[in-house]
Formats: sequence, structure tokens, C-alpha cells
Amino acid sequence: MLDDRITLDYGSGGQKTSELIETLLVPSFQNDALSRLGDGAVLPALPSQPVFSTDSFVVSPWRFPGGNVGKLAVCGTVNDVCMAGGEPLYLSLAMVIEEGFAMESLREIVQSAAETAREAGVQIVTGDTKVVERGACDGIYLNTAGIGALRAPGLSPRAIREGDSVIVSGSAGCHGAAVMMARAGLGGGALRSDCMALHRLSAAVLACGGVRVLRDPTRGGVATTLNEFVEGSALGVELEEDAIPVDEAVETACGLLGLDPLYCACEGRLLAVTAPEQTEQALAALRALPGGEQAARIGSVTARFPGRVTLRNAFGGSRVLAKLAGAQLPRIC
Amino acid sequence: MLDDRITLDYGSGGQKTSELIETLLVPSFQNDALSRLGDGAVLPALPSQPVFSTDSFVVSPWRFPGGNVGKLAVCGTVNDVCMAGGEPLYLSLAMVIEEGFAMESLREIVQSAAETAREAGVQIVTGDTKVVERGACDGIYLNTAGIGALRAPGLSPRAIREGDSVIVSGSAGCHGAAVMMARAGLGGGALRSDCMALHRLSAAVLACGGVRVLRDPTRGGVATTLNEFVEGSALGVELEEDAIPVDEAVETACGLLGLDPLYCACEGRLLAVTAPEQTEQALAALRALPGGEQAARIGSVTARFPGRVTLRNAFGGSRVLAKLAGAQLPRIC
Repeated sequence: MLDDRITLDYGSGGQKTSELIETLLVPSFQNDALSRLGDGAVLPALPSQPVFSTDSFVVSPWRFPGGNVGKLAVCGTVNDVCMAGGEPLYLSLAMVIEEGFAMESLREIVQSAAETAREAGVQIVTGDTKVVERGACDGIYLNTAGIGALRAPGLSPRAIREGDSVIVSGSAGCHGAAVMMARAGLGGGALRSDCMALHRLSAAVLACGGVRVLRDPTRGGVATTLNEFVEGSALGVELEEDAIPVDEAVETACGLLGLDPLYCACEGRLLAVTAPEQTEQALAALRALPGGEQAARIGSVTARFPGRVTLRNAFGGSRVLAKLAGAQLPRIC
Repeated sequence: MLDDRITLDYGSGGQKTSELIETLLVPSFQNDALSRLGDGAVLPALPSQPVFSTDSFVVSPWRFPGGNVGKLAVCGTVNDVCMAGGEPLYLSLAMVIEEGFAMESLREIVQSAAETAREAGVQIVTGDTKVVERGACDGIYLNTAGIGALRAPGLSPRAIREGDSVIVSGSAGCHGAAVMMARAGLGGGALRSDCMALHRLSAAVLACGGVRVLRDPTRGGVATTLNEFVEGSALGVELEEDAIPVDEAVETACGLLGLDPLYCACEGRLLAVTAPEQTEQALAALRALPGGEQAARIGSVTARFPGRVTLRNAFGGSRVLAKLAGAQLPRIC
């Protein structure tokens, strides 16, 4: 029987740690590699080169409309592996939990992580649990690392060419706006995080060919990610404001909070730069999948504004979208 | 130019995050995979099955005699990969840093991690930086995940046989005792953490053959790790108290603090259970290497006390060493 609240004992490496692992973690994540409970997991040989990624998750509040930190931690790393051209296969999950955290909340987070991993076709094969004293962390912080098998080599901002298309798979800024509204105590309504695993959407786009680079626009949002693509390059990106899908609920929330949706984090969207010949096919492939219905070509690569991202509005006016300088949204992921 | 103290901006994913990555992290860890700065690292194909492990590090204080959290984070995961039978190759490094943390301290931690990784022959190829508000973590927490190539398949407590030898590579409890003394403001003197990478020692033992299982006795120490080996099994472990190397400085510190060295964490020791025929060879191999000079056979596997670890003293008396029940030492790693 687990206690109602996390105590320091659960992070001791002793009896209580074993109980937590055996009664909550192993049954939730069930797979052979984890069940052997060694210091590390021994995995089957990979079919191709490894892709390796990690992220820590300190989102506040830990539960938000459309997900929680457990779901987010799985999606975040699954998506990073996908964006690097890999098929995600295995995850680690490490938890830093504050003394006094409710066991019921931990169960909710773990089950959400397990369910998301199942849907994404990845196994959580190794992990770690640390408990810190009351006041030494803000509830719970997670870290995931992921291993995938490379299926699309050579994806890189350096592969971008003049005339390429810029595609986004759905509405910008949902995750950031949803978390900020929840933090302000203004949750509810239609606004939900877009948090989802991008394994199907990225595979579909890659299958069309002609993909130069993929990236999920998390911290810093669409604007910052596109800036990273062209920073220091002889090419720039020209966006069409009207072409960028932004849900009405996000517009409203951003208006209230004084935020720009193009700088708000997404956690279930992909940005792709594709060759012009494959653009229509890529859009059709995305739109045919759940979570990709709103996929749109939002701009193109140009030599006119080297190293810059510009936004053109319906009246023909144009402004520069700089990289996010500071912390617009702390602890969004 | 980096600021003197970490601000929330450094975790924003924007300009400041890029500065931190480009002026501190990439130059410290220098390798091709990291320099490409994608969402994940694309690695060369592995020569054998992957071994995968992770740990978070919340040690307090972050600097202790013999190391700091950066060195510890590299050693901890390198060692877990080694103990699972792998040759460690690649690490991720994720940092959660508290607003206001001194940049000079972060530099010390990062450089220590980089140096330790170089010595251990592993590359830090991917990472993440999050900054949380003042009061939301206690200075800095690190996470590393590691990928190795399997070289010794089948290591498992289930491979242990009656009559096998139990070997430790050096003095028990140094890390736990050193951190607890530092926390009590009693640092100084001969007591230093044993924190070191075990890649050479584990390779040397494995080369002798006859190894059933390897484990580094971190949280819970030698006593808890040995309990994990025989839990629920028809075999037990009988230790000879006089044979277990415990440095005098550790004895003294544990006396002062009311701790038992056999339950204190090591971060640079390995426990091996080996076939009796290979024991002498394994001991000789360990003793020939730096950090293995005190290697000793400390006990044997017996059918007399199934599932138990017992300790026999010089007078022939015997007591049971149970698994650590609670948190003897919180935040030791």
C-alpha cells in the first residue's frame, strides 16, 4: 500500500522506492526491459542510426486544459526525436517530486504518461525517482530522454532553398495560451493545449519527400523557431499573416494576457520547410490525419530578407518577427 | 557576454537561451552531434544492442569534497550503463536552474561535467535548459541519460549461484559520508567522495569472465544493493565484516553522524558477484587500476539464508542487514 502523500522515504533507494516502482511504475509502463529493474535497460538492436533527445518539464500548473506534465513529458521528447528525423522507440522517465505531493496526483501523471506512450508506440524502459524536501521544488519536475531510429537523414536548416514552402500542421500557440490561462485561474472554455505526439504527422510528411527541416515550435513559438532556421543564413522567411491558423480561443486568450500567438509555445504542432513540388502532397497528408486538419502553407523562403522572418498582412504591410529576446512565458513546459 | 546570474530569460528558448548554449555549453562539450543544435542528436550506428539509463541529481550541497553535481551527473549515468553491461558512449544533460543562481557556479558545474565526460570517453550530445523562479528549486538539478553499447549480455541477479564471490572495488560509503559532512558544515580533512566513472574497472572485471551481476551501490549503499540481488531468491549473501574496506575517515564521519557506512551511498564503487574460479583474477584486475586498489572479496553466496544478507563479525557473531526502509540520507545524489 502506498501512502497518501510522497515522503522522503520514497526517494531513498530503499524499501519505499521499491514499493513505488513495483506497485505504480512497472504496472503502468509494463514492458520487459523495465521489469528487469537493472541499473539500465538492455534494448533490442536498432534498425538504423540512433536519434537521441532529452527535455525537462517544469510546467506550472502541472495539470492544464488538454493534458498534464506526464503527457507533456512523453509528447515533448517523442516530438523532438520525430523532428530530428527519427522514429521514436524508447523513453526514460526521471521524476523529482516534492515531499508532500499527493500520491493520487502522481498516479494521474504516471497513468497519463503511460497512456500517451502507448498511443505514440514508445516504451518507457528505464527511470529514476528523487524526492526533495518541502519547498525544494514546486510539486513535480519530470525529465524524459528518448531514443529513436533514424529514418530521414540530413534534415537541417542548411538544406533550405529559395522558393521552399513553410508549413504548419495546426493552430499556433494553443499550449502556451492554455497554460497561461490556467495559471491565471482563467481555465475553461474552448481553449485546450495542443499537446500531442507527432509521430504520425511527421511520418506522413516525410513520406512525401522534399522535406528540408522539421521542428516543433515549443518555447518561443512559431516566430522563434523560424528565426532559428534562417539565423545567419542568406535566406529569410516571408509569412502571410492571413494564412497562419490561430484558433479563436487562442486569439481571445492572447488578447486578454497581452501575448502574441506567434510567440506562444505549441506542443503538438510541426513546422516543415518543404520543396515547392511536394507542398500540396504534404498538406494533403497532414490534413488526412487527426491533429493535422488545419495544416496550412503559411509562407515561403525568400532571398529578399536574409536571416529574417517577416510577416505580411492583408493590406500588404510587412513587419519583422524577431527572435524572442527574454522569457515571455516561464515554465510553460 | 553572459550575465552574472541566471535569469528566467535563459530558460525562455529565445535569444538568451541561445547565448547560454553557444557561449558555454557547446564550447565546453564540443562534439559534432551537439554542434548541429537540432531537436535531437543523430548518432553513428551502435556496434551492438543499446543500453539505456537515466538519473536525476539533486545533491545538496551541489559542491562537496571530491566533486560537484556536474561530475556526479556524468559518473552516475556512465556507471549505470557500465553496470548494465554496456560501454558508455553518449550522454544527454538537462538542467533545471533556479533564477539567481551564479553564472560562475554554473560554469564550474558545466566544466566539471565536460572534463569527467572526456575522461570517461563519452560525448554529451544533446541537452535542455529550464529556469524556474526563485524558490522553485534549490539551486540546480541535473538529469543525464546515457546510451551505451552492450558488451556483456545476461548480467542479472538471477545468474547468481551458490558459492559465488561478492567483490567490492573500494571503500564503502565515502560519497554519502562526504556529502553529509559537507551539509553539516563539517567538510575538510581526509574525507572525500569516491565519485568516479567506473568504465575502466567494469571493463577489467568483465574481461576476466564469470561475472554474474554488477551494480554500483549508490542510494542505500552496499547493504541495500546486496539485498536487491537476493530478494525473493533461494540464495543469500554472507558478508565478512572484517573484509569490507571502510576508510578511517568514513568510520569517523559515520560515528559522528550516527550513520552506518554499509548503508551510505558510493558513487565510484562497483559490487560484482563472480564465479569462484574467476575471483582472484577479477580482484587482481581491479587492484591494478586507479580507484580499485582496495578491491576485496567481502563475502559469498550461500543457500543457508535464502533472500537475506548477513554480516559475520570477527567473533563469529552474525546479524541480518535488512534493506534500507526509509530515507537514511536524502538528497545524497
